[in-house]
Amino acid sequence: MSNQQALDIERERSGSTINQQQVKELFHGGAESLSKREWIASLVAKEPVFSKTGQEFLSRAERFHRGLAKGKRFAELRNQYGLDQEESMLFLKLFVDDFVPACLHIDMFLPVLRNQSSKEQWARWGSEAESMRMLGCYAQTELGHGSNLSGLETTATLDKAADEWVINSPTASAAKYWIGALGKTCTHAAVVAQLIIDGKSYGAHPFLVPIRSLDDHTLLPGIRALDIGPKVGAGQMDNGWAMFDQVRIPRTNMLMGYSQVDQDGTYHKPLNDRLRYGTMTYVRVHIVEFASLALSRAITIAVRYSVVRRQGSTRMYQGGEPQVLDYQTQQHRLLPLLAQAYAFSITGHWMGRHYHTLMDMLQNGDDSLLADVHAYSSALKSYTTKVVADGSEDARKSMGGHGYSMFNGISEPLGTYQATNTFEGENVLLTQQAASYLLKIYRAIKAGKQVLPAQEYTVGYLYRLLASPAALAEDRPKDILSPNGLVAMFEHRAARLLRAVGDAHLDGAGWETQLIAFAQLARAHVQVLVVRNFFGELAHHRLDGSTAQAMLDLAKLHALHLVLYTDLGEFVEDGFLATAQLDKMRAEYLRLLQSIRGNAVALVDAFGWPDWYLNSALGASDGRAYDRLVEAIQSEPLNTTEVDSRGVIRGYDEFIRPLIRGECGEFSMRMQEARHAKAKM
Amino acid sequence: MSNQQALDIERERSGSTINQQQVKELFHGGAESLSKREWIASLVAKEPVFSKTGQEFLSRAERFHRGLAKGKRFAELRNQYGLDQEESMLFLKLFVDDFVPACLHIDMFLPVLRNQSSKEQWARWGSEAESMRMLGCYAQTELGHGSNLSGLETTATLDKAADEWVINSPTASAAKYWIGALGKTCTHAAVVAQLIIDGKSYGAHPFLVPIRSLDDHTLLPGIRALDIGPKVGAGQMDNGWAMFDQVRIPRTNMLMGYSQVDQDGTYHKPLNDRLRYGTMTYVRVHIVEFASLALSRAITIAVRYSVVRRQGSTRMYQGGEPQVLDYQTQQHRLLPLLAQAYAFSITGHWMGRHYHTLMDMLQNGDDSLLADVHAYSSALKSYTTKVVADGSEDARKSMGGHGYSMFNGISEPLGTYQATNTFEGENVLLTQQAASYLLKIYRAIKAGKQVLPAQEYTVGYLYRLLASPAALAEDRPKDILSPNGLVAMFEHRAARLLRAVGDAHLDGAGWETQLIAFAQLARAHVQVLVVRNFFGELAHHRLDGSTAQAMLDLAKLHALHLVLYTDLGEFVEDGFLATAQLDKMRAEYLRLLQSIRGNAVALVDAFGWPDWYLNSALGASDGRAYDRLVEAIQSEPLNTTEVDSRGVIRGYDEFIRPLIRGECGEFSMRMQEARHAKAKM
Ligand SMILES: Cc1cc2nc3c(=O)[nH]c(=O)nc-3n(C[C@H](O)[C@H](O)[C@H](O)COP(=O)(O)OP(=O)(O)OC[C@H]3O[C@@H](n4cnc5c(N)ncnc54)[C@H](O)[C@@H]3O)c2cc1C
Ligand SMILES: Cc1cc2nc3c(=O)[nH]c(=O)nc-3n(C[C@H](O)[C@H](O)[C@H](O)COP(=O)(O)OP(=O)(O)OC[C@H]3O[C@@H](n4cnc5c(N)ncnc54)[C@H](O)[C@@H]3O)c2cc1C
Repeated sequence: MSNQQALDIERERSGSTINQQQVKELFHGGAESLSKREWIASLVAKEPVFSKTGQEFLSRAERFHRGLAKGKRFAELRNQYGLDQEESMLFLKLFVDDFVPACLHIDMFLPVLRNQSSKEQWARWGSEAESMRMLGCYAQTELGHGSNLSGLETTATLDKAADEWVINSPTASAAKYWIGALGKTCTHAAVVAQLIIDGKSYGAHPFLVPIRSLDDHTLLPGIRALDIGPKVGAGQMDNGWAMFDQVRIPRTNMLMGYSQVDQDGTYHKPLNDRLRYGTMTYVRVHIVEFASLALSRAITIAVRYSVVRRQGSTRMYQGGEPQVLDYQTQQHRLLPLLAQAYAFSITGHWMGRHYHTLMDMLQNGDDSLLADVHAYSSALKSYTTKVVADGSEDARKSMGGHGYSMFNGISEPLGTYQATNTFEGENVLLTQQAASYLLKIYRAIKAGKQVLPAQEYTVGYLYRLLASPAALAEDRPKDILSPNGLVAMFEHRAARLLRAVGDAHLDGAGWETQLIAFAQLARAHVQVLVVRNFFGELAHHRLDGSTAQAMLDLAKLHALHLVLYTDLGEFVEDGFLATAQLDKMRAEYLRLLQSIRGNAVALVDAFGWPDWYLNSALGASDGRAYDRLVEAIQSEPLNTTEVDSRGVIRGYDEFIRPLIRGECGEFSMRMQEARHAKAKM
Repeated sequence: MSNQQALDIERERSGSTINQQQVKELFHGGAESLSKREWIASLVAKEPVFSKTGQEFLSRAERFHRGLAKGKRFAELRNQYGLDQEESMLFLKLFVDDFVPACLHIDMFLPVLRNQSSKEQWARWGSEAESMRMLGCYAQTELGHGSNLSGLETTATLDKAADEWVINSPTASAAKYWIGALGKTCTHAAVVAQLIIDGKSYGAHPFLVPIRSLDDHTLLPGIRALDIGPKVGAGQMDNGWAMFDQVRIPRTNMLMGYSQVDQDGTYHKPLNDRLRYGTMTYVRVHIVEFASLALSRAITIAVRYSVVRRQGSTRMYQGGEPQVLDYQTQQHRLLPLLAQAYAFSITGHWMGRHYHTLMDMLQNGDDSLLADVHAYSSALKSYTTKVVADGSEDARKSMGGHGYSMFNGISEPLGTYQATNTFEGENVLLTQQAASYLLKIYRAIKAGKQVLPAQEYTVGYLYRLLASPAALAEDRPKDILSPNGLVAMFEHRAARLLRAVGDAHLDGAGWETQLIAFAQLARAHVQVLVVRNFFGELAHHRLDGSTAQAMLDLAKLHALHLVLYTDLGEFVEDGFLATAQLDKMRAEYLRLLQSIRGNAVALVDAFGWPDWYLNSALGASDGRAYDRLVEAIQSEPLNTTEVDSRGVIRGYDEFIRPLIRGECGEFSMRMQEARHAKAKM
């Protein structure tokens, strides 16, 4: 049995026509980035504490305790090697893989402290925080308020006499909630609270609040905190509830990198806080950069399983039962996801570069890219994380019955990943940010403005297509199957949607009446970018001939799938594409499925995920899915600790034997008839 | 805080314009069916063993043991009241809600034994099985084979001398796998095996195989069985792996209701096994009937939470923060699901009736409806269970951060529900069944045949529209917003897809080249039915004026949502609908969202789910979502058993204190620089 499967997957590999290393570098953003990732992976792989073996059997409390151990070991390695922000994120959020409490320190607390402290504050706190002698969290969300920041109820009131802030939770709904690492572990919190001086509120500001004693870890006076219980994922994280009862901190614990408050109560507005807005988008940019990694992992598993799973009538298909990846529907289910994993990685790298361009410009006082980066990070976060979450679940389902086992390797990380659809801006809500930016662009176009050079690549097409009514109507792609032709379809559709939304807006349509249209527009606009980036990246990468061809096929499949099977209506409702063109595109789509199928295993191998990372019985590199399943089930507690020496399940005496012995009554339809007769009386 | 929420939800109720009782009866399939369900619910509610309180904190083993206790109590009540098949299913699969091992006995084993035993066999086994002194399972799937029944490897070889069957698993991939209740609990299995006599194979047949001793529950000689470990859901079920090593059972343990084998080895083919095929679709019909129930539960929770959750800038919206259900995108996310819950319930009842019509006809030797029922149960199962699973997850996400808590009441049952997308025919695969039937219809139409009266309602429209090339082109709906106009759109699109697929098929296109098109066709065809049934049911139900209006709005929203936002491309690519018509439909869609929003809470209340059943902090009937969340987290083990008397988390000494005390090194970027310098050497 194992032989057949091992042979099947090896045959796939030997039939591949791509240059592994080239594709791997493309996916990971270049040779340097790849070798950094591989080095971090090797650090994690060496440490037994990070092993995932058997984690499927642990209770939440057991997992949580393992998380503490992982956090400590991570801190030691971070200090030992001087792992920087990016390396630390790769270590914890990518390779360690279940969010341990230390994640919040690295991911949220440190960046906030670094960027929002004044120079003096950073000198005071920096080394403690960087070395993790201080363990922080970021406490913004409350039980009653998340999306609407202005509604936060926690107050920080200045007591001038004492030169202190009084942090207080005035109502039950003001409790901080969902705060990672606040429940049990952190020593400090960056608490976002309404800043109040002399009865006047200045809006939400961040304060560094000590939470637990550095001596014995007990909660400091006036603070209550609890873990908020089991979640869809992220079981190792102590997301917390907390309330503050008139808790006092020094005035200088307000983070004063932007606004400042003097001892006499004078409030200084930030002179220029564009840099702050820039750094605040960082977390979202990072989510976009990581989206493809999550998808690539699920698709690795599903594709590998689909070549070792043989299922189907031998009457109908020659050469024994088909590998299920030979079915058109299976290809249709998985290969577009494979293409999306590559597409999102390319756009993720682009997003990172775009962000760094912005930060460089901001340092030089130029904020012309701020709105663009903000809009893209919002819309891309919303779009990619949804596709990745939904796509991973469908990849799981494509594995049939065995896909329902927790040894699938997909469900467990997916539960945790699902949170990305909600945090850092709820996905649906975020589309309003992008729409708001595009409406500004539309007004600029209507006012006859020219596109700024820095924005030519991202929104230049809108200026071109919407400058005159004729432009949009005339713009018909010549070769609909060429990269340019495909990109043009996406541009046309996004521009058309913006024109409709924009005209209604200029006609005075209320914001609240266009929310659905905004969401469609945001999606259409980022698809332009993702599709264009994919073709663009291939055009300037040196790939071997057959590798280049395989990647071009993928890029086309990616575009055609969106046009034909995901958003067809929006592309055709204005008659932009004729049925004959669609038929031609569909034929090409089917041809591409076939051609990509041959390289499918090589293309997932090129993601480079080690078996210890995938932790999947179904998707291991050697293809031995059945053997590994049967190996994995041996450790199930119902097979080990919950049975007696003869293998009889605990509970038999109490719950099964009485039944079998007939001590639980005798079934008879007459009981029912009696019931009905009685009911009729 | 609680007051505001309680007030908010009560205000929704007092503003409702629908007659609760009428809508409730409509949803539950009439007054009689409703009162049966309410009675069963009351039986479950009374018994502490079925309580779900605190289940979020249990390990799988603990849950499994609770499941045993539930099974026993269910058996006692079943025997006491003479609960029939339908009532038993309502009891276990609806209200008890997590699949306990006893489910398999009721759901699969009993129906198979009832329908496939001969009269004598049933006389021998019936009362034992009905009273649950025998605990059964249905063992068909193997490690290597599920969908492809003909590939099963387990053999049952006749030993004429001994008058016995020898049951054997010849390879590792022949192991029975996924078999509910086989791992730890069942005493008997209906094992599907290749029947072999004198070296000749007669295909897969069912055999009653004793698995565990009735004396002490140990596995019988030659049998090995294990639980297959943690799954995406269904944690209380011991899905099992099992292997048979030359296990002997009497010849008369082959289920002989259809085929028979004599002592001398003569094999008798069934004279007529249409009745068998009829009963085999029962499980799928049942899944269709239950789909709306699963969706209605998720949508109850999400709608209720969306009226008590207030979030948004008070600058932009008057009267305080908006209830999130006031946002267009939130309505767009939830109200179509609300409409689908009603649509699927109506079609579920229709499916049940259609099935019973078939069974009556089969009893009278008329099998003209067999293919139709088979195709519908396949396509509807595939379509509805996918919409319900995906829709429930989006309903969960629509609740923002708090939706990520396991106290949401959606995720837990959804994990279990996900299995319906896979078992009883994998969803994508099933669409081929429907397509195969429709291709037969197409050939009949091309051959000039007339529709059979029994099929007029289901496929009559295809005969009408495809009889001549002109019919399809001419058929333009007049009033596109009327029920007839809407139904006509769905009919047109399904007929158009069938024509394309059918013509290609008649031109010799290989089966394997059309699988994607088949899946689209199956979906289009069942949507015709679901949309038509919804309008039809309303037309012949007596509802109060404003109730009728509200339901008609829902039915229209259901149809418009599919046209405009789910499958737009298929409706417009042939130019059947013009942009102006679409704009009119979109305006109507937005109007409907607003009008249905007012009755949303009343419409979910009408599903009638008690709070104990929903088990949701976010969706309880009193609206006190925040209070209930904070109540629920008090019992989290990390807050109770995993902390010391001062509230300090276990593991602090080992993993946190050393960090804080600086025993884990000091971070310095110089370490990194040293690293890089070294790398360059
Ligand atoms: C796992 C996890 C970890 C987290 N960690 C932290 C943390 O460490 N620190 C922290 O401070 N927070 C944290 N959060 C909180 C998180 O940032 C918020 O939950 C998230 O921003 C969503 O906000 P919300 O819960 O208020 O959603 P809501 O705004 O309540 O969303 C509910 C629904 O209302 C809709 N909606 C809301 N407003 C509008 C509007 N204006 N227009 C249209 N629709 C609207 C949304 O689209 C959504 O469908 C975490 C959350 C999770 C799930
Ligand atoms: C929770 C659970 C409980 C179960 N309980 C039982 C039980 O009690 N008794 C029992 O006997 N079984 C049981 N099963 C097994 C179940 O019936 C099968 O898993 C199910 O029928 C799917 O079959 P499969 O696993 O072979 O999927 P596969 O056929 O392996 O599916 C994998 C992929 O291949 C595709 N595919 C397969 N064949 C074709 C084809 N011909 N054309 C196109 N695509 C194809 C599918 O669409 C799917 O995407 C259970 C399963 C689960 C998940």
